[in-house]
Amino acid sequence: MPGRNHLFVPGPTTVPDSVLSAMHAQMVDHRSPVFPQLVTPLLQDLKKVFRTEQGQCFILPATGTAGWEISLANTLSPGDKVLAFRFGQFSHLWIDMAKRLGFNVQYDEIPWGQGIDPNRVEELLKADAGHEIKAVLICHNETATGVTNDLAAIRKAIDAAGHPALFFTDGVSSVASLEFRMDDWGVDVALAGSQKGFMLPAGLAMLCFSQKALKARETAKCPRCFLDIADHINANKDGYTPYTPAISLLYGLRKALDLLLEEGMENVYARHARLAEGTRRAVKAWGLELCCRDPQKYSNTVSAIVVPQGFDARDVMHYAFHRYNLSLGAGLSELAGKVFRIGHLGDLNELSLSSAIVGAEMAMLDVGIPVTPGSGIAAASSYWRETAKPLAPRG
Amino acid sequence: MPGRNHLFVPGPTTVPDSVLSAMHAQMVDHRSPVFPQLVTPLLQDLKKVFRTEQGQCFILPATGTAGWEISLANTLSPGDKVLAFRFGQFSHLWIDMAKRLGFNVQYDEIPWGQGIDPNRVEELLKADAGHEIKAVLICHNETATGVTNDLAAIRKAIDAAGHPALFFTDGVSSVASLEFRMDDWGVDVALAGSQKGFMLPAGLAMLCFSQKALKARETAKCPRCFLDIADHINANKDGYTPYTPAISLLYGLRKALDLLLEEGMENVYARHARLAEGTRRAVKAWGLELCCRDPQKYSNTVSAIVVPQGFDARDVMHYAFHRYNLSLGAGLSELAGKVFRIGHLGDLNELSLSSAIVGAEMAMLDVGIPVTPGSGIAAASSYWRETAKPLAPRG
Amino acid sequence: MPGRNHLFVPGPTTVPDSVLSAMHAQMVDHRSPVFPQLVTPLLQDLKKVFRTEQGQCFILPATGTAGWEISLANTLSPGDKVLAFRFGQFSHLWIDMAKRLGFNVQYDEIPWGQGIDPNRVEELLKADAGHEIKAVLICHNETATGVTNDLAAIRKAIDAAGHPALFFTDGVSSVASLEFRMDDWGVDVALAGSQKGFMLPAGLAMLCFSQKALKARETAKCPRCFLDIADHINANKDGYTPYTPAISLLYGLRKALDLLLEEGMENVYARHARLAEGTRRAVKAWGLELCCRDPQKYSNTVSAIVVPQGFDARDVMHYAFHRYNLSLGAGLSELAGKVFRIGHLGDLNELSLSSAIVGAEMAMLDVGIPVTPGSGIAAASSYWRETAKPLAPRG
Amino acid sequence: MPGRNHLFVPGPTTVPDSVLSAMHAQMVDHRSPVFPQLVTPLLQDLKKVFRTEQGQCFILPATGTAGWEISLANTLSPGDKVLAFRFGQFSHLWIDMAKRLGFNVQYDEIPWGQGIDPNRVEELLKADAGHEIKAVLICHNETATGVTNDLAAIRKAIDAAGHPALFFTDGVSSVASLEFRMDDWGVDVALAGSQKGFMLPAGLAMLCFSQKALKARETAKCPRCFLDIADHINANKDGYTPYTPAISLLYGLRKALDLLLEEGMENVYARHARLAEGTRRAVKAWGLELCCRDPQKYSNTVSAIVVPQGFDARDVMHYAFHRYNLSLGAGLSELAGKVFRIGHLGDLNELSLSSAIVGAEMAMLDVGIPVTPGSGIAAASSYWRETAKPLAPRG
Repeated sequence: MPGRNHLFVPGPTTVPDSVLSAMHAQMVDHRSPVFPQLVTPLLQDLKKVFRTEQGQCFILPATGTAGWEISLANTLSPGDKVLAFRFGQFSHLWIDMAKRLGFNVQYDEIPWGQGIDPNRVEELLKADAGHEIKAVLICHNETATGVTNDLAAIRKAIDAAGHPALFFTDGVSSVASLEFRMDDWGVDVALAGSQKGFMLPAGLAMLCFSQKALKARETAKCPRCFLDIADHINANKDGYTPYTPAISLLYGLRKALDLLLEEGMENVYARHARLAEGTRRAVKAWGLELCCRDPQKYSNTVSAIVVPQGFDARDVMHYAFHRYNLSLGAGLSELAGKVFRIGHLGDLNELSLSSAIVGAEMAMLDVGIPVTPGSGIAAASSYWRETAKPLAPRG
Repeated sequence: MPGRNHLFVPGPTTVPDSVLSAMHAQMVDHRSPVFPQLVTPLLQDLKKVFRTEQGQCFILPATGTAGWEISLANTLSPGDKVLAFRFGQFSHLWIDMAKRLGFNVQYDEIPWGQGIDPNRVEELLKADAGHEIKAVLICHNETATGVTNDLAAIRKAIDAAGHPALFFTDGVSSVASLEFRMDDWGVDVALAGSQKGFMLPAGLAMLCFSQKALKARETAKCPRCFLDIADHINANKDGYTPYTPAISLLYGLRKALDLLLEEGMENVYARHARLAEGTRRAVKAWGLELCCRDPQKYSNTVSAIVVPQGFDARDVMHYAFHRYNLSLGAGLSELAGKVFRIGHLGDLNELSLSSAIVGAEMAMLDVGIPVTPGSGIAAASSYWRETAKPLAPRG
Repeated sequence: MPGRNHLFVPGPTTVPDSVLSAMHAQMVDHRSPVFPQLVTPLLQDLKKVFRTEQGQCFILPATGTAGWEISLANTLSPGDKVLAFRFGQFSHLWIDMAKRLGFNVQYDEIPWGQGIDPNRVEELLKADAGHEIKAVLICHNETATGVTNDLAAIRKAIDAAGHPALFFTDGVSSVASLEFRMDDWGVDVALAGSQKGFMLPAGLAMLCFSQKALKARETAKCPRCFLDIADHINANKDGYTPYTPAISLLYGLRKALDLLLEEGMENVYARHARLAEGTRRAVKAWGLELCCRDPQKYSNTVSAIVVPQGFDARDVMHYAFHRYNLSLGAGLSELAGKVFRIGHLGDLNELSLSSAIVGAEMAMLDVGIPVTPGSGIAAASSYWRETAKPLAPRG
Repeated sequence: MPGRNHLFVPGPTTVPDSVLSAMHAQMVDHRSPVFPQLVTPLLQDLKKVFRTEQGQCFILPATGTAGWEISLANTLSPGDKVLAFRFGQFSHLWIDMAKRLGFNVQYDEIPWGQGIDPNRVEELLKADAGHEIKAVLICHNETATGVTNDLAAIRKAIDAAGHPALFFTDGVSSVASLEFRMDDWGVDVALAGSQKGFMLPAGLAMLCFSQKALKARETAKCPRCFLDIADHINANKDGYTPYTPAISLLYGLRKALDLLLEEGMENVYARHARLAEGTRRAVKAWGLELCCRDPQKYSNTVSAIVVPQGFDARDVMHYAFHRYNLSLGAGLSELAGKVFRIGHLGDLNELSLSSAIVGAEMAMLDVGIPVTPGSGIAAASSYWRETAKPLAPRG
């Protein structure tokens, strides 16, 4: 098909051309005396994205799924109890993993489309008088439903409960896009993948451990080796890696971090918020609902849009993809057919996102969903115009 | 600025990623025994784009501007009379060049926004009973105004006049995008550049000479050397080039020709026509006028849009570029400030073009031009939906 | 430093330009209906490299180190006994991992520079009358010492012992370079990484499991999740992956497999053998010894060269790198300072390898090792000339 | 063929990976307000390579061949007399072009392999009492024979003759590699191409005009348009170009200039001299002769090596290319079959060049030329070792 594919799944996201070019470089000896000049600044600059001064970052040649396992296996022991909340496919999968790895997972079922009530966290932790719960697992942004939890409030809830549990956060679809503050929020392990806000291909798991988490490591008895951060701690201190790193992705990460830090993390957050709000205005103008029911929890990285009764969201995706070369995110698991998703994260501006809104509208019309042509983009673009930065007149 | 630049000037056009990748390859010895395996098929396949079996194609490391000079200098002698028509900046520049090179240029002034009347061509040629006119210079698609001339009708006019003049066509913004038929239309020299429908960076002039033009070469007395196709005729017959070729652009041309021929030239024409008509529907929905006044001559590669009295099109471009990262084409020369242009040619699909329509609308609103938000894309997308190819249902 | 880096560590190897270009492509939706068109042929073609019809291949976004863990964790249960041999840094690390993961590792210490005696394998397995040993772990090619074991003979030894143990092989620096025959040799799990013979950046672990190994999976009790091939078996059957794959590396793998299969695996083996023998002739001409003491076990992918008494191989590497932009492989662990290594695997021809030989010679002379200038390349090039394919005369 | 091609023709030269990556970037609007941020610094930095403060540089989307024409057509009038020297294929071609363009060319025939005697220049100019000679055309480095002329001495000769002729120099295979000093040597027009010392693909002609040459422009009557620098002077002053530029090559030029200026022009010259001398030592060790007969004129960018009587240099090239993937330069015109050439310019270091020396030796042996295996590289590498920069010991 002529013309580019319009990629609006909530990951992998579009890789900026400059990042692809940075990745297009020859391999080097990862044991050479100059290799630390690549690794050490990456680890330092990652801290600026996780917003930490106290924590320590790690980069593994793996994915966000590995990140879940890294967080658990490096800090806990088999049979340990963890507290979690199931409110979408990715929070589900983390829980599922914890079970498979032999942990004792206590979790609330929350209707998909809702998020976590910090009061409930406090209540559950208070109820755990014996401090059996070793970690609280929170999916910051549930990519399947477009729901973002309030990590600051959850931190307060843990503190209010006076509970010593570790605080783990899945930031795969939040870190580098949504406001995330490792130190301020007292996060103990934050995990991210390369293929979302970091604007890279998948293939890197990036984590940040607090000093408390690093300490927990010393008594953790889970067997681990490839995912053992002990080897990374040893090797990283001199700027090396415990095994051959995914060098091309490291080259890309160098460029991606440059882009993020040049823009400034606060600006990155604001850009995502503004682009997301435009998308939500479009959804409203179409007369449709978001899967996320709580406006306080609307995700600024992904919107899951509910198709009206009688329609199958997979048909919308079918037309979008085959007719307009637009890749929309599918509804996952119990949301299959009920929602389609627009990822609005990463290297993105108003007019790129317009393609997704226009294309989604066209595909909805193709399958018979009665939306007013042009209504979505009219609402989105009006919002973006109203909130655009002042521009000096020409000349 | 985050996110990609939306490039909608009518050249250079967006280079497909696959073409950029093809260009990203190491140099080779252009005198090696295998180099002809690159050059010879390029020259053969170019003929399929110019739609010729009789003609001979040439590729020079130069630009479309050089193409104008190549056409003139290789076939004519100093002082020769040529007939031309001035109806936009690029037809103007070709005339200007012919004058600077010492030719005797007879030309009609045609209001910008109009095209060439074939009857007038016939009339002028009939008036030239002594056959002093050696060549008729026709800009097929005037990129400055969005006007496409009817070359078939002009060929008929030349024939009706029984005039032996050579028929030269500037196809810079038409060949590889708009219907173009070298043999059927009896074109003697057609010239193109790499940075428009060929979807490449600028740097190649591509020409096709008819047998009649090749014969005219033998008596042409214009001094020429770098642009002398004689050296190319000699070297090309064995698959070589008379001097070091722009190898990376040749690599890219190989891929670009593959893309064009896989799509099929008729499909390429139809795609451009459909995308252009959507754009024109948007303009109409905005309540604006095209610079081109004759619907029969609407260009399918570029639309020049007239801003209402009291507005300066350069302000629209200013907002589009600095606020939305959208590059629109400027009004040139006497159209400066009066029009902005949307190039809709090359590697393009509906949703890419949507970005230009949405962005142009936003920028117009920013400068105060009263258009209805969403109206442009509503009209364009409705047209594209109506004319989309049937798609089998999912599954 | 001007000019390219000459990368002759035994991994990562030089990535061919065509592979880097293939990797330089935009992301796509890994859940789209067309994604299996990428994944399924990769898995099929990988079988041709592992030389298997019976086995099943897997590609994980990880590294060879993960491959060791994948082989163990997916087939065994905690506390299981495995038989291994320690004769270099990488066989050491696999043993070390097995211990860390809680296996009962029985292993022989073999002097570094020697390989595994198949008779000893037979003897040890025969001694295990109770069949407590569940798997035999063999490092096919010990990258640290340049020793290649005879897997066919070891297979015979296992059979001769009538022992049911699984046969695991680390093929990180052998598969895709050295003769490797999964089916013929009855290998149960073979593991490889992307950054050696596959000519890619690190970031992919590629494995092949025999039916017997797949069956063992069913009773394996090791906790595992990210590295659990069960999820891959499920997802791969439809051409998908259980989590976001490292798409750019998959693009590269597509091209790398094309290169390997176009050359033909037998030709790949022969090329590596011929290039390696040239290197060995150079070493002999220098009057130096290889770390590998058994000519039957000389590695065709890496040569570890012993520097004379009184010299430190790290000085050779220092001069090679800083003065001539040549990256040689270091002596590892107990070989540190005693050897330097030349990797001669991957995308390589005679004249590329000449740079390594010439540069190693220059660096040795710089540190005072008395070798005759030009002697190494004289011996290597003479061998390569003698064994070059016949070439038809010019014209 | 596996492994890279070893490209040692004296142009196109190997493009550094970083330059290819810089070229791999999307097009932009060449009329946008930010485009001058690319063009203006390029023109400024080019002056640092031509070593001029007084002159003005130009970049055209063309080649070195066009450069010859640009120099002549922009400064002279038809029939003007120019003085030249024919001593190789490229000096020949410039003379040929001048004739074809209608100039009155007075030239000496000098045996190929020799260069220009400045005394003869002085003599000829003194003889031109009427100052009919308007320009002296000097090929600085004759790429066909490996002869470099002494431009400073020729400048002195012109001055000694008190002759006002313009001083034109072809620097295609010298500028950016060999010492070149526009201002110090009073050069009036210097021309270069992108595919040699500038380490780019062909496709850019780069020129520098002195103020005297710019003044001569005003009375020059040669017809010209595409190659008329008047349009460049007009457009460049604001950072624009008169027609669509070869943007990808400009991106590459930006990076190439960065590389050259970071290394420092004096270091660039010294590196080329040292690499060339190594090559010449190899030739001497082989017992062969260079085409260049005067050691004062040995070229530091290309060596033309004479094969012994009874051998055909084309056979050497045949074996080098087909057997070892080595591209050597051919003997041109009257040198065909008598010499092969090694280009040693551009992005090059000792070990890259070693491949050419080793490969040339192997190919010579293949065709039966009796050279001692290893002798060439022994001599070259010994010289390079002796002249290597001091290196601090390890650690």
